[in-house]
Amino acid sequence: MSAAEKKDEAPTTSGTPKDGTKDDTKGTSKDRPKDAPKGGSATTSAFLAACRGEKVDHVPVWFMRQAGRSLPEYRKLREGVPMLESCTRPEMVVEITMQPVRRYGVDAAIFYSDIVVPLKAIGVDLDIVPGTGPVVAKPIRTVKDVEQQLRELTPADVPYVTESVRGLVSELGTTPLIGFAGAPFTLASYLIEGGPSRDHRLTKELMYRDPATWDALLGRLATIAATFLRVQVQAGAKAVQLFDSWAGSLSREDYVKYVKPYAKRVLDAVADLDVPRIHFGVGTGELLGEMGDAGADVVGVDWRVSLSDALARVGSGRSVQGNLDPTVLFAPDEVMRAKATAVLDAGRSARGHVFNLGHGVLPATDPDALKRLVDHVHAYEVR
Amino acid sequence: MSAAEKKDEAPTTSGTPKDGTKDDTKGTSKDRPKDAPKGGSATTSAFLAACRGEKVDHVPVWFMRQAGRSLPEYRKLREGVPMLESCTRPEMVVEITMQPVRRYGVDAAIFYSDIVVPLKAIGVDLDIVPGTGPVVAKPIRTVKDVEQQLRELTPADVPYVTESVRGLVSELGTTPLIGFAGAPFTLASYLIEGGPSRDHRLTKELMYRDPATWDALLGRLATIAATFLRVQVQAGAKAVQLFDSWAGSLSREDYVKYVKPYAKRVLDAVADLDVPRIHFGVGTGELLGEMGDAGADVVGVDWRVSLSDALARVGSGRSVQGNLDPTVLFAPDEVMRAKATAVLDAGRSARGHVFNLGHGVLPATDPDALKRLVDHVHAYEVR
Repeated sequence: MSAAEKKDEAPTTSGTPKDGTKDDTKGTSKDRPKDAPKGGSATTSAFLAACRGEKVDHVPVWFMRQAGRSLPEYRKLREGVPMLESCTRPEMVVEITMQPVRRYGVDAAIFYSDIVVPLKAIGVDLDIVPGTGPVVAKPIRTVKDVEQQLRELTPADVPYVTESVRGLVSELGTTPLIGFAGAPFTLASYLIEGGPSRDHRLTKELMYRDPATWDALLGRLATIAATFLRVQVQAGAKAVQLFDSWAGSLSREDYVKYVKPYAKRVLDAVADLDVPRIHFGVGTGELLGEMGDAGADVVGVDWRVSLSDALARVGSGRSVQGNLDPTVLFAPDEVMRAKATAVLDAGRSARGHVFNLGHGVLPATDPDALKRLVDHVHAYEVR
Repeated sequence: MSAAEKKDEAPTTSGTPKDGTKDDTKGTSKDRPKDAPKGGSATTSAFLAACRGEKVDHVPVWFMRQAGRSLPEYRKLREGVPMLESCTRPEMVVEITMQPVRRYGVDAAIFYSDIVVPLKAIGVDLDIVPGTGPVVAKPIRTVKDVEQQLRELTPADVPYVTESVRGLVSELGTTPLIGFAGAPFTLASYLIEGGPSRDHRLTKELMYRDPATWDALLGRLATIAATFLRVQVQAGAKAVQLFDSWAGSLSREDYVKYVKPYAKRVLDAVADLDVPRIHFGVGTGELLGEMGDAGADVVGVDWRVSLSDALARVGSGRSVQGNLDPTVLFAPDEVMRAKATAVLDAGRSARGHVFNLGHGVLPATDPDALKRLVDHVHAYEVR
């Protein structure tokens, strides 16, 4: 298992936009492969429109980790280049982000990076170890650790991010780029545990026992994440996704008390940028309402909860994203199509629905299956 | 991380019974430490009464993996003895099962074993590898594999189980022993993947693609699990728990179609034994109603879902078991007590409530914290 598989928060993607149906300067329409009647003034992307709860002419689709190890062209490009180094090379970031856009014609690209990139950028001694995931040399467990290891992030710390996003925006044309960051709880878990954890035991122990360190750490991570998102949007990203990958390990009570305030701080801090804010975590069926309430315009939904149930929990004021089981890509085509259609049918009741998997693309996934899935989603009649 | 940590289905426990409140020959009352007024004829254990939805004088409590690595006396006893070997040595099984009963005064013991023990017993080439978990030499992926590697289990294959249970029943006195088995889906996942899996990708691929092999494999595992439970009950176990540890990786739709029928087959096959049947899986918040409907008298609840929500999903016809986050044992005492009380308060609305963690005891848990938790649960006023 390589590093990318261990990190549940380093998706990478993109998408070719389709005809939108609303007047909006954020995006414009492009090649619509089939049955592209669709009235309307069509200057926004379907992805952005769905995020905002506006009318769409087709259901937009992208995939978490649409770039990465499932693509042979990615594996070839990454040969001999360590993960974190690849994130600092703009030409590589652009190419990797573009690969799935070209292949699949998805409706959005997601910036190729990693949630630990901003931490590395401010000097945290960490690396992504193949077969393990992010490993932190000196775990952070006191206020002093926070002060010594976690200074504020500034745009000057990540010039390669700005350069990569600018390059991508030019390359992508009307396809929106999604910027992303790891949420405070998930970043804190890596920093406290020193690496990936099954039970987040040390993280929760600190959370329960040491409110001062908890607040210092998550507060600082919130400003770092917010800055990382701002840098991406200011360079041209048209939406952001905040990944709280491990939030699903928390009871709702603990999420509300210890974690939600910091996620909210991040989402609030980018509210003025006027781009859709997506918020996602794995196994967060019980938290969907709270994650929306933290300030999300779009709530990402894990496949374990039916999209209908998710809609009831999220409420009618937000859009949803999801939620096909990533292993369904390994099913026979007719099974995959039927399951995708069920998700699409449920999504009709949403304010807006962005089709996605309920988690990242698995490395063994056949790219052709993903392509067939994109085509299936695009062929779905929204009216 | 040692083997036991990787296996989510090898709990081990017991408990001292308290005054029950119903006439029942399955158990009798014993030492009740505090406020033991409790009317009624008191011949059943609180654990069995709660499982059956009968009146109790206190909330019964036991912990998944209450024996095992969190106990120094366990680690000492196991020194140099491989996991699977320890399960075949009755004197060791009895001692390990008894250890937490003596320490904590819990209301039930759970048989020290492992879900792969019956597979090993019929000759499947597998071992529990420290740091990894169960590893299967020749993964099972065809009907022929099933026929060649998975014969039926007979009581004669596991004489050490019968002997251990008999020894335990005599040792435990009125404290009920819970027998257990792994459910077909979870066992199938190990056999198909060849070991532990994060995404159960090969398992689900076979599930979607090869209905004949799926039915042959899960059908055979259902009869094996049923036999393994029958052996334990016939030797004296007073309840059974069917662990479908990985069921939480499935959407409800897939659970109902591909997995529930086989879990039901196991639970139905032991219905005539007239012992409470508990059914538990990790992260199964969305499946609770279906898992109950599979034939459980008691539905085990993961901590990610609030017990109140769980009750609504399980319905009023079954009891529930759970559901404190195992990491709460690492919180300050007042936090642990408050959270336990919240679970107990929610449990009041249940037909019956067996207090437990929402998953197994973590290896680093302080046994004294568990003891304080047991005392706290026992001190809770049920009227």
